[in-house]
Amino acid sequence: MKQHLSRIRHTDLSRRIVSKEEAASWIQDGMTLGLSGFTRAGDAKAVPMALVERAKAESFQVDVYTGASLGSDIDKLMAEAGIVRKRLPFQADRTMRRKINDNDLLFVDQHLSHTAELIRNDVMNPIDYAIVEAVSITEDGTIIPSTSVGNSSIFVEKAKAVIVEINIAQPEAFEGMHDVYELAEQGEREPIPLTKVADRIGSVGIKVHPDKMKGIVLTNQPDSPSTIVPPDEETAMMAKHLISFLRKEKEAGRLPDHLAPLQSGIGSVANAVLHGLLDSEFTDLEVYSEVLQDAVFDLIDAGKVRFASGCSITLSEEKMKAVFSSIDQYKDRVVLRPQELSNHPEIIRRLGLIAINTSLEVDIYGNVNSTHVSGTNMMNGIGGSGDFARNAKLSIFVTKSIAKGGDISSIVPFVSHIDHTEHDVDVIVTEQGYADLRGLAPTERAPLIIHHCAHPMYREQLLDYYNEALHTRGGQTPHILEKAFSWHIHYEKYGTMLQQTFQYS
Amino acid sequence: MKQHLSRIRHTDLSRRIVSKEEAASWIQDGMTLGLSGFTRAGDAKAVPMALVERAKAESFQVDVYTGASLGSDIDKLMAEAGIVRKRLPFQADRTMRRKINDNDLLFVDQHLSHTAELIRNDVMNPIDYAIVEAVSITEDGTIIPSTSVGNSSIFVEKAKAVIVEINIAQPEAFEGMHDVYELAEQGEREPIPLTKVADRIGSVGIKVHPDKMKGIVLTNQPDSPSTIVPPDEETAMMAKHLISFLRKEKEAGRLPDHLAPLQSGIGSVANAVLHGLLDSEFTDLEVYSEVLQDAVFDLIDAGKVRFASGCSITLSEEKMKAVFSSIDQYKDRVVLRPQELSNHPEIIRRLGLIAINTSLEVDIYGNVNSTHVSGTNMMNGIGGSGDFARNAKLSIFVTKSIAKGGDISSIVPFVSHIDHTEHDVDVIVTEQGYADLRGLAPTERAPLIIHHCAHPMYREQLLDYYNEALHTRGGQTPHILEKAFSWHIHYEKYGTMLQQTFQYS
Repeated sequence: MKQHLSRIRHTDLSRRIVSKEEAASWIQDGMTLGLSGFTRAGDAKAVPMALVERAKAESFQVDVYTGASLGSDIDKLMAEAGIVRKRLPFQADRTMRRKINDNDLLFVDQHLSHTAELIRNDVMNPIDYAIVEAVSITEDGTIIPSTSVGNSSIFVEKAKAVIVEINIAQPEAFEGMHDVYELAEQGEREPIPLTKVADRIGSVGIKVHPDKMKGIVLTNQPDSPSTIVPPDEETAMMAKHLISFLRKEKEAGRLPDHLAPLQSGIGSVANAVLHGLLDSEFTDLEVYSEVLQDAVFDLIDAGKVRFASGCSITLSEEKMKAVFSSIDQYKDRVVLRPQELSNHPEIIRRLGLIAINTSLEVDIYGNVNSTHVSGTNMMNGIGGSGDFARNAKLSIFVTKSIAKGGDISSIVPFVSHIDHTEHDVDVIVTEQGYADLRGLAPTERAPLIIHHCAHPMYREQLLDYYNEALHTRGGQTPHILEKAFSWHIHYEKYGTMLQQTFQYS
Repeated sequence: MKQHLSRIRHTDLSRRIVSKEEAASWIQDGMTLGLSGFTRAGDAKAVPMALVERAKAESFQVDVYTGASLGSDIDKLMAEAGIVRKRLPFQADRTMRRKINDNDLLFVDQHLSHTAELIRNDVMNPIDYAIVEAVSITEDGTIIPSTSVGNSSIFVEKAKAVIVEINIAQPEAFEGMHDVYELAEQGEREPIPLTKVADRIGSVGIKVHPDKMKGIVLTNQPDSPSTIVPPDEETAMMAKHLISFLRKEKEAGRLPDHLAPLQSGIGSVANAVLHGLLDSEFTDLEVYSEVLQDAVFDLIDAGKVRFASGCSITLSEEKMKAVFSSIDQYKDRVVLRPQELSNHPEIIRRLGLIAINTSLEVDIYGNVNSTHVSGTNMMNGIGGSGDFARNAKLSIFVTKSIAKGGDISSIVPFVSHIDHTEHDVDVIVTEQGYADLRGLAPTERAPLIIHHCAHPMYREQLLDYYNEALHTRGGQTPHILEKAFSWHIHYEKYGTMLQQTFQYS
């Protein structure tokens, strides 16, 4: 307890400590909550758990806004307890996913840079309580976030009341690692003065008027570690192809030795691909991304990355131990910002990022589905991939060419849901190779994608579709609408997209 | 001729006048040309025409980059002559469209803010000749564009050689109306210092080293006037619904009396909707758009719009006469910038634009098709709609609810091509009403769109699809893939989307 108290340096506020149960009791049916948390990092843990407890005896529902996905099974438990009416802008929990797809709760799949603007503009329900995790509160009442900033600063700014969870399992040494820049209203806004990845433009924490701080809850619970699957043969091949592409860009004089600031999506594939840079010739790299995963810290440790900017740090158990025990040595090489800054179109376009994101499926013209299985069922959400793909200098999507042992081709005639249009997709990388689509018309793109990215077992079938479409229908983007989704339908019926008896031409 | 000469104030350059035939003779098979011109405004006219002439005796092909669509039948004549191998980033000519859809020429459908970055980054073929129209050349050799800036500044900067067409049919008084700001390379770029619509941040024309100026051609040919169809009953209803929505936003405190800077797409529908503001209570408006059409000048004349920023001026014959004869009185109220500035994500997001664009079709979840008829055939191109929709404060799409006398419903189960995903579409307006989709999940969106935007003759059929999808498939975005395109297929077969005998449920 004493250890907790030393973390609340504002005298008045140190008197507002309450139990998690008491804090949870303030929340009424129909309220909207803004919870800290971005990809399992820095999520508010105690009050949501107490809320789940309360639901055993009482019936209520709330809308839950976060940075991105939560850890500690909070999304799972809230979904099971049936207390969430609407959830946004991203989640990644299996149980919540099922509830979403069963239409037991409403999920709004938002670009991660958009949520803050919608809240600032009072478009969605006003936030009743911001509940944010912190490592400390300073003498002047500034909230020092823990492993993520996410949407916490806009939640605190706009919420009617604020509850802070001081988590002593999160090192106090995080103080000084954040850069919280507040944007004014649109139309009254100055240019964001960030021109280099390492620039610091804001304050070390989240300013809040002490009157709005309704209570402080003390906790001691680490973040859920990430569940990164180690690189495998295929992700190693994807990394190899990506690096070949970057090398070609360098040789053509389009990229310098230190490339351009890198963004990489969440997950094992993106992490593995980033890992591939460890053994490459590229050095003095910079990262301007949302989640900083193991690979980024491995690259820093290896002297490959000189600076990394993100809005959260999500690590495996082992890497978390290593990083957390020596945070001070990362402080001049890592910064955490609000997600509307990490994902801001102004910065992404200005810095000219290389954006690397994963896709569920890609079609022969380069449209990308990042979210929906068979066009209907939500996986996790678009996350920041649209923020980056739309405005980056290089928008790269990576995917294994097949899934389910070959029963699914990740390259299809027509994606069953579109999150990124062909206008926003520059390069596609699979373990088979890469297709550089920049400046190409659809009929130039299709053969490239089929020959370089599709799995050999599906190439002929794709060519059959493409050739029939080209020769019987033609047009800028040849398609046979009657057969556009036939691969998905075939999979639903027969468990495979491979159509051995079915000839297109 | 004397009149022409007074427009070339740089002594050395005035000696480089050549005939259009001579200039055209410099262009070799396989070259890439960067032509001025944006939606019929300020296009290079003489040299492309001479090139078309040359093709009668000689076989050659070139790649043609422009700002957007061209006037004076140049796209038509070039397409007919077969001299275009690849064309980007936008066109709007019937003959060229047919050639594109017949795969006689390659068309790359690009976001209008992207072309300049791709050229700056040396991603596409280098430009051999920039051919740009101007009203004059100053003492220091600065090129003063005419009715559009478009991509001319990046073409001139990156081209190996420059040909200027001095067009005396374009008033010399345009000098002083442009604001040409040059962006540095990504990563070495400062924030764009524009924070208000009326800010001037660049120079009055395009700087070029005199050594690069290969020749000057004198011309006397007005821009092709726009072919705007006057407002009809349906566009008047759309304007009314749009204004109701804006009024509601104002009443909710989300917009001030002067709204936010307006962007409006090209074409009769967008022009008519903008026209609707003439009779509204909103005043002191600002426009930050790409094309400034008749409606914008009508709104300026009526004292409704205080300032308009664009990258081209495209007017009807009558309005052109009126505006061109009194340009000086518009100079403190109108500015023309390069299209990467008018369409720049940094500015669009900072200013918080209200973006109003037209769509070909919209689906029940809010995905928008702006470009492809029946999923395959290119209409014009995405233009700037993606630049604006993606980054605006309010992304509004307008469409009539039906086309071809009711045989086509503009609201369909699944759009046959996606240019704007549901993440980027806030409000849909038809003559039936509007649907405000912000902060809504797909299953909240569908009933709204069907009830408020679809034509009554298609509502039941849409509800049948939606309800069958919801109850038999479910998911975040319920769809029946077997039937997703059945409306389009039905139209192809029977000439109507109305399926009187076909029941979904």
